[in-house]
Formats: sequence, C-alpha cells, structure tokens
Amino acid sequence: MSQDERQPVVAANRVFYKAFSERDFAAMDGLWARRSPVACIHPGWPPIFQRENVMASWRGILGNEQQATVTCSDERVLINGDTAIVICTEKVAGNALVATNIFAREDGAWRMIHHQAGPRPAEEPKKQKEEPASKRILH
Amino acid sequence: MSQDERQPVVAANRVFYKAFSERDFAAMDGLWARRSPVACIHPGWPPIFQRENVMASWRGILGNEQQATVTCSDERVLINGDTAIVICTEKVAGNALVATNIFAREDGAWRMIHHQAGPRPAEEPKKQKEEPASKRILH
Repeated sequence: MSQDERQPVVAANRVFYKAFSERDFAAMDGLWARRSPVACIHPGWPPIFQRENVMASWRGILGNEQQATVTCSDERVLINGDTAIVICTEKVAGNALVATNIFAREDGAWRMIHHQAGPRPAEEPKKQKEEPASKRILH
Repeated sequence: MSQDERQPVVAANRVFYKAFSERDFAAMDGLWARRSPVACIHPGWPPIFQRENVMASWRGILGNEQQATVTCSDERVLINGDTAIVICTEKVAGNALVATNIFAREDGAWRMIHHQAGPRPAEEPKKQKEEPASKRILH
C-alpha cells in the first residue's frame, strides 16, 4: 500500500476531527456516507445505527457549547478495496482515547461509515515490531 | 443487503468468540487474515499492528487460564464490498463491552482484520428508529 493511496484517507479522517473540533455540523454531515450503511459508537454510549440516528447524535454533540476540542494523532491506515480503516489517538480535555474510523469509497471520495472511540491507557505502548518508516503515515 | 449475505459474516464473528472462550489459539490464528493488513485494540491496551504482534497478543490472552469466557450478542452487520463490519455486545465476567470486528474476504472466506472492544454503558440504549426486523440479524 503506498503513501499516496493512504493520503486521501488521512485527509478524510482530518475532516472528521476538524468538523468535530469546530462543531461544524454541515461538514460532519457532508463527511458521512450517503449510501453505505453506517454506525457510530461514542465513548460510553450504546452503538447507534442508521444515518438519521448517527447524525442526530452528532447534532447533539456538536450543538453543545461545552464540547471540548478533539485532536487526532498517530494515524495508521489499513485499506481493503473500497474500505479504509484509520486507527488513531484522540486527545479530548487531557484524556487520551483510541479510535477506529472506517471509510467507504463513494463516488471517488472517502466517506465515513463507522466511528468507535474508547479509553486508551496513559502508559506508553509496549515495544512492538515496527513497520518500516516508509509504510507509516508521518506527521 | 440480504440476510444470506450477512450469515457467513456472523458465522466468522462467532468463530472469533468461540476461539476466545475456548482459548483455542489455532482457531484464532486461522481466523485472522493472512494477506490484508491487520490491527487489534484490546480494551485498555494501545493499538497493536501487524499480524505477528496481534497474534502474539492473542497467544498471551488465550494462554491465560484465568481468562474469563466471552459471549457475544446483538450482532449487527454492515457489508461494504469485500469488507464486513460486525458491531456486537460482549459479556466478559459480568461486564458489557461493545466491539467493532472487521473482516476482509480472502479466498472466498471472511477473515478478521481488526477488533476493537471498549466499555459499554449498563443502561439500555436510548430509543432509536429501528430498521425493519427483516434487515436485522435475529438470534
């Protein structure tokens, strides 16, 4: 998988966090897939199914003026045909979460079809065998 | 999406929980994809990348005689081409978790490429607009 292939996926993932942090419902709505089935698991919430319900949840979250800014780092991308998975770290109000964001290709663009975020331990990951640097998204 | 299309995905998801509960490393190893890139987020762990690292984590977990049985319910399936997503509830030692399990089609079989599980609230989900019963996996 080339860096070039991953770049549009990382860009779509950044649209998600920008919309989230700027509480921009129109941008969030534009990012979520129109035709593929969608789901969303906000931390501590039961899973939400169907676009209408998922977007209602985002309308509530983004409409909350107390909603903290969310930043994203450590994006790793897995692509499988017309589906892409981004695994990344979220920082929200000093807490670290880990997220799985899934995108489907619709009309040539990567659109979000699923998001799950949950707690991530504060400690550093155990040493893993690393991919060559050329295979990772650096930022 | 037909029930028939979803059934092999649900079956693959059940292989995962059976292998988990029976601490059957060979079955778990057989389920994970060989060619597609894989990742895994165990609850409270940092994300793990690469098959070798993911399987090492399962070898540790399944080798632990104290590992509690894990049951799965409420499977919901989203299929996008050669990728399938199962969202389900896990019960582990009386605790409810919510999981996203992702499968890729390899040689005609659904193989696991990603797993994330995290805490699920104890309370009942807020009322959502439901899909017609015919579109849901019942069990």
